[in-house]
Amino acid sequence: MVNVTRSLAEFVVNTKAGDVPDNVVHEAKRSLLHWIGCAIGGSHERSVDCAVAAIKPFCGPPQASALGRSERLDVLHAAFINGVSTDILSFSDTHPETLIHPTGVIGPVLFALAETKRTSGRDLLHALILGFEVASRVSLAIYPWHYNRGWHITGTAGAFGAAAAAGKLLGLDETRLTCALGIAATEAAGLRGMFGSMCKSFHSGRAAENGLLAAFLAREGFTSVEDGIGGPRCFAHVLGESPDLDRVSRDLGESYEITRNTYKAFPCGVVIHPVIDACLRLRQAPGFSVSAIDAVKIRANPLVIELTGRKAPMTTLEGKLSVYHCAAAALIAGRLGEQECKPEIITRADIVALRSKVRVQVDQAIREDEAYVTLCMPDGRKLREHVEHAIGTAERPMSDAEIETKFKGLCEPYLPPATIQRLIDRCWGITDVADAGSLARLGSAG
Amino acid sequence: MVNVTRSLAEFVVNTKAGDVPDNVVHEAKRSLLHWIGCAIGGSHERSVDCAVAAIKPFCGPPQASALGRSERLDVLHAAFINGVSTDILSFSDTHPETLIHPTGVIGPVLFALAETKRTSGRDLLHALILGFEVASRVSLAIYPWHYNRGWHITGTAGAFGAAAAAGKLLGLDETRLTCALGIAATEAAGLRGMFGSMCKSFHSGRAAENGLLAAFLAREGFTSVEDGIGGPRCFAHVLGESPDLDRVSRDLGESYEITRNTYKAFPCGVVIHPVIDACLRLRQAPGFSVSAIDAVKIRANPLVIELTGRKAPMTTLEGKLSVYHCAAAALIAGRLGEQECKPEIITRADIVALRSKVRVQVDQAIREDEAYVTLCMPDGRKLREHVEHAIGTAERPMSDAEIETKFKGLCEPYLPPATIQRLIDRCWGITDVADAGSLARLGSAG
Repeated sequence: MVNVTRSLAEFVVNTKAGDVPDNVVHEAKRSLLHWIGCAIGGSHERSVDCAVAAIKPFCGPPQASALGRSERLDVLHAAFINGVSTDILSFSDTHPETLIHPTGVIGPVLFALAETKRTSGRDLLHALILGFEVASRVSLAIYPWHYNRGWHITGTAGAFGAAAAAGKLLGLDETRLTCALGIAATEAAGLRGMFGSMCKSFHSGRAAENGLLAAFLAREGFTSVEDGIGGPRCFAHVLGESPDLDRVSRDLGESYEITRNTYKAFPCGVVIHPVIDACLRLRQAPGFSVSAIDAVKIRANPLVIELTGRKAPMTTLEGKLSVYHCAAAALIAGRLGEQECKPEIITRADIVALRSKVRVQVDQAIREDEAYVTLCMPDGRKLREHVEHAIGTAERPMSDAEIETKFKGLCEPYLPPATIQRLIDRCWGITDVADAGSLARLGSAG
Repeated sequence: MVNVTRSLAEFVVNTKAGDVPDNVVHEAKRSLLHWIGCAIGGSHERSVDCAVAAIKPFCGPPQASALGRSERLDVLHAAFINGVSTDILSFSDTHPETLIHPTGVIGPVLFALAETKRTSGRDLLHALILGFEVASRVSLAIYPWHYNRGWHITGTAGAFGAAAAAGKLLGLDETRLTCALGIAATEAAGLRGMFGSMCKSFHSGRAAENGLLAAFLAREGFTSVEDGIGGPRCFAHVLGESPDLDRVSRDLGESYEITRNTYKAFPCGVVIHPVIDACLRLRQAPGFSVSAIDAVKIRANPLVIELTGRKAPMTTLEGKLSVYHCAAAALIAGRLGEQECKPEIITRADIVALRSKVRVQVDQAIREDEAYVTLCMPDGRKLREHVEHAIGTAERPMSDAEIETKFKGLCEPYLPPATIQRLIDRCWGITDVADAGSLARLGSAG
């Protein structure tokens, strides 16, 4: 029986930055830039204010930045808060085969450490690649049973990525990293039943902190068992059912899961993405005029109505889960970002009027990332668009420029344009940055 | 469908100290005294040293004591460290129907809070009673499936007790306490596969910290869902199977689970307890002489050999899991405490010699808390003892005096006798103590 925990520890300890192919490094840069944007974009939501207020009286020395904010927190709490910020807008990157959002858990740990221990950009990026690998491989072993049972896989398996990345930067040996992964295994938590409450983004924050704490404990000699992931009554058997442990260690170091990473183009339910994508394209069609639309006819996968069939949304969260609102807002605004999901936009007269003209027909033969949208114009003309694969899927990944645009949109409310541009430049050039902690400081609004 | 999370929150918020019967109050005093002893007794184990070293660089202000030690830590980390100390010797109190060790999770939270916010002894004891009730009732709903699946119920359900007790002392209203319990639900973690490593006692420490953090977050308005325990994809359904949610709220406030609390008389596998009990009684038999024993014949439940059949133990942990060692040490030393499980005692010549004379015969008809021990003397005489129910079981609870003796044994290495006596006196008189934080300070070695 292979000890999968030790296999992962060996891989993380022994892999060198130079071993990683260029395409993997490039995807890691995209993941890093995208994550920083998500963390800054969510940094002023009420959940973060509450969490900061709760921990402030017990915080340690001001060691690390809260992205997008002015507070400096101790390293564990900084990882926690940045993890909470990341996931609030439901905009995190996604490993499509398991639905885990790895970078939102790993990034906060890397930034917190880089501010307390001088770390090169190359090492930081390499630790992200390794942490991503560990989190997604553990996830592959237990998906889909784990997710279907009700576990929020980012909260549970995410901590392995955080522990692995932290262990790499702290220079843990194989035995200590094995213990760190075991400690992370026994901290794993996060329920899908919490979706819709602040606890959803709590999961990524706590997973970051859990993984980092596990690495710190293991560094001091705190022990776990030999195989905390695959051993009897350990993680994969208790939070999984008949886990496929071979997925954890097969081809380790030969293929990299981060190359499969995806980024959400829009801050709303993923099943609406092809609809929004089609609406945005239709704006380019000859003869398009918002004011002239008689009807918006959508044909889409049945999940669109099941998950996002809300006809009269009022709040931001409801707007993000309404295909009617998202289609109307995309057609009117020409984009669909956080701004288009604010309550004042959701209830604006022109948006409400157009959304009442949206009709949805579901069809089991249409895939989840596919949609047909037809605009019926008063002269009888029909403008049609068929999106085969929505932007942001593995088949049609966001370009580097599109990730930059998303990044800017997320950061603009909180950072000056020059700082935003410097962050973008330093992410693309991260492997030449001598002090990766400088990115964390740039990303703070302190 | 009853919202069990809100039922518990209502109960905790609305129950007053005066509503609780005297026998419940007395059992709570016993639980409190016993817990302080366990925390002090474990406070210098290597796990605690490692954990303190790991968190020290990130600790906040020195707000609360580490029992038995000189460090002062921020309130969250103090709860964590005292929770770790509590469970290391595997000596915690046990709710027999579910095997949860509630006070080891709740006590650390109460002490940490009492040092930062002036709290009367009466309120502290009442919060312990309520926290115990919440933790054991949630446990009852999911036991035994939960435990059999591989969950360490102290780590998982324990956090509900910590959150409830903290919420009571912080004066949370029903809605915020409901959220606190929900946050605790989504932090619940701890795997039985970790037994044998430092992670076992990590569970009670982290559950204490988790519950306390949940209460602090809820106080600041951090939200969870309506029924984090019984709702869909929430705690009882994800970490339980067909939970009996009626057990959570049935007769709330009419019967108190803490009256069923039990305390381990000896720091070793519970199946050996009747054997040790019999050996200690045999020392009182006329004609007893250790040096004259030819053979020690034990008849006991088959689990005694299955779980504690180790013939040549070397380490403390192995000694605690060896019926041969425990029987020999009890007969020679006349007691079986931590001291009798030190490696130098386990390997001492006279102990080794006597243990080689121990024979165990198993019998399915003998209960787990029952044992027959016969000493064969050289003149052919046989000294016999039959223990129907071992000391420390619900049928034969430890007396107040026996708990005091255990307490003294646990504290003696770390605190002066006068301090130990003061702690005992203040626990029995806790309802008249104006500042319960004084107990925490007394229990520290700072």
